[in-house]
Amino acid sequence: MNIGLLGCGVVGGGILDFCAGREDLTVTKVLVRRPRPDLGALAVTDIADIVNDEAIGIVAEVMGGLHPAYEYICAAMKAGKHVVTANKAVISAYYPELTGLARECGVSLRCTAAVGGGIPWLTNLERCKRLDSICELGGIMNGTTNFIMDAMHASPVSFPEILKQAQELGYAEADPSADIDGDDVRRKLTISANIAFDALVQEEDIPMFGIRTVTDGDIRAFKAHGFVCKLLATAKAAEGGVCAFIEPTLVDSHDLEAAVPKNFNLITYCGEKVGRHSFFGQGAGRYPTAFNAVEDCLDIVAGKPGFYTQAMKPAPVLCGGEAHPYYVRTACPDAFLQSVTVEHWGDGVVTACVSVEEMLRWGRAQLDKDPGCFLAGIR
Amino acid sequence: MNIGLLGCGVVGGGILDFCAGREDLTVTKVLVRRPRPDLGALAVTDIADIVNDEAIGIVAEVMGGLHPAYEYICAAMKAGKHVVTANKAVISAYYPELTGLARECGVSLRCTAAVGGGIPWLTNLERCKRLDSICELGGIMNGTTNFIMDAMHASPVSFPEILKQAQELGYAEADPSADIDGDDVRRKLTISANIAFDALVQEEDIPMFGIRTVTDGDIRAFKAHGFVCKLLATAKAAEGGVCAFIEPTLVDSHDLEAAVPKNFNLITYCGEKVGRHSFFGQGAGRYPTAFNAVEDCLDIVAGKPGFYTQAMKPAPVLCGGEAHPYYVRTACPDAFLQSVTVEHWGDGVVTACVSVEEMLRWGRAQLDKDPGCFLAGIR
Repeated sequence: MNIGLLGCGVVGGGILDFCAGREDLTVTKVLVRRPRPDLGALAVTDIADIVNDEAIGIVAEVMGGLHPAYEYICAAMKAGKHVVTANKAVISAYYPELTGLARECGVSLRCTAAVGGGIPWLTNLERCKRLDSICELGGIMNGTTNFIMDAMHASPVSFPEILKQAQELGYAEADPSADIDGDDVRRKLTISANIAFDALVQEEDIPMFGIRTVTDGDIRAFKAHGFVCKLLATAKAAEGGVCAFIEPTLVDSHDLEAAVPKNFNLITYCGEKVGRHSFFGQGAGRYPTAFNAVEDCLDIVAGKPGFYTQAMKPAPVLCGGEAHPYYVRTACPDAFLQSVTVEHWGDGVVTACVSVEEMLRWGRAQLDKDPGCFLAGIR
Repeated sequence: MNIGLLGCGVVGGGILDFCAGREDLTVTKVLVRRPRPDLGALAVTDIADIVNDEAIGIVAEVMGGLHPAYEYICAAMKAGKHVVTANKAVISAYYPELTGLARECGVSLRCTAAVGGGIPWLTNLERCKRLDSICELGGIMNGTTNFIMDAMHASPVSFPEILKQAQELGYAEADPSADIDGDDVRRKLTISANIAFDALVQEEDIPMFGIRTVTDGDIRAFKAHGFVCKLLATAKAAEGGVCAFIEPTLVDSHDLEAAVPKNFNLITYCGEKVGRHSFFGQGAGRYPTAFNAVEDCLDIVAGKPGFYTQAMKPAPVLCGGEAHPYYVRTACPDAFLQSVTVEHWGDGVVTACVSVEEMLRWGRAQLDKDPGCFLAGIR
């Protein structure tokens, strides 16, 4: 089948490499913004050249960003083309529009590379759902923050220092906000939860707290108590909605998540009957991301229809029923924090069980009063 | 599609549960040896009733054992039926015969539940191979031995004592040899390596050393040096064959394998381009094993053809090129062991790099002289 590739950066180049020499998949056109002599006759600069090309069966979008990616994907589907994308932002933001349009147009829409890079996460989630009910999912869904947390546990280093190293190594963007504040994870969690629970969760409804304010002192306190801190995403089926949140989480130092090194991810679902399945691998990078994008193309060639689920019901995010203890460090403890404090760890305190909804709302507000405030759920 | 189920023990019962109420899969006959009033009209006692039933599309074999499972599977395929099996022994022992017959008869043969119970291991290995080359695979492929090793690291307990506990909990068989001596893992490794490398490895060619002789003192020495001992399987592409072996292995206490608890498995492949993917879950049990068997049926309904690979070339097992240090404890050290010893750990020694072929051959011979001898590769 012929592929029209939208974008040819790091991931697009990987897709070209994977397709080279294959008989079942051929990249016949590549949409670029600037002249790319290295692409020879493949390069086109007008999306119409791809959308109107009847010989193209799949449009693979790896440009990133919301616009014009959204418009191009819609145009491709309306022209009867299957779409593969690695773009978590566009799928998360336009989930009902894009999955609805794919259904309407009778085309496949696949985005396995959008969640977990090269990890076969969404495909296995889809497979499990054929037979079992998903009770819960989540885990380590961002390599940049795992790299940072892993390094901070390995040796005493400040957050700004290790962030700089991560940027130099290419593990973090020049503007690291999307990674370290949780937005990247939130997009992946939205897509995963929507597929797992046949839901329509709004990305912005999911509460989150990032790792920007963690200190070397916090890490020392966690290690002293046998914990490792990871940025974890969680989504659970809840009565009348979905419980979903993202927060730094203290896991027992013997837990599987604690052993995830460097920029790797570990993503988990729990099936009602089959129990826990976890998937470990590189959540980003040229070949991992291109791998899942091309695997999606192969699934389309094999006749895999539509999206990962055909169902979606609006689902409010409900985190009031989920409660656990927290570690909190702030220079300005208030009456609420004092009322739930049960223990002191270094500069921080440990609370009794507090609902996730309440604690993350408090944490976001507290950042205005104390921009250095940090909190982490204790599992 | 109608299913004829061969055997209705723990796993067969799970298959009935998963299929109950489905429109795409219906178990219409169940082969049993003894009367089973609970199965009502489903029960038959003659395999011919299933093989000759034209309304049955899939035969699902969960009887276990080599015979008559092999004969029944062959009869089913010859009658044009797709076959799903959870039986690692029969697939490993009759790999060329069964995959060849499936090809000849134009039917599907799936055995995902045979390796890793409920873990989607073989399906993901197959998926990766569509696009990438597998360099290496293996990991923790037996829950019984992981339960034992995990417990021995958690608190001082002798091997016989914890084995007895595992038997009482139903994690180990009354005759535990197949698990603790490595045969069970060897079958799973044979099937995985054959699929990954398009090979025809003979099960009995893979050298192995089990965990039967490990002592609490060994574990103490490993922990003192920052290691955790796991029974690991390994298979690598090698020039002119496949390097495959099974041995207790000392992994860094921070490694992912070290964090695998209880009777869970963690199975890994490394793709040339995509890197490492690991899969964690329950490697045995009613619902996990039934899950993968029924998922195989769904794949067949969706039109998935044949076996996981269509290629196989005879492949000698070559472990001469693979070398690493070993921990060895024996009451009768000989000249060979002394010549490679570089360090002493408690009652044992640590060797320089020794080839796997040489060390495992020496280990098997040494068990005749010193039945309490133990060895473990150091990763």
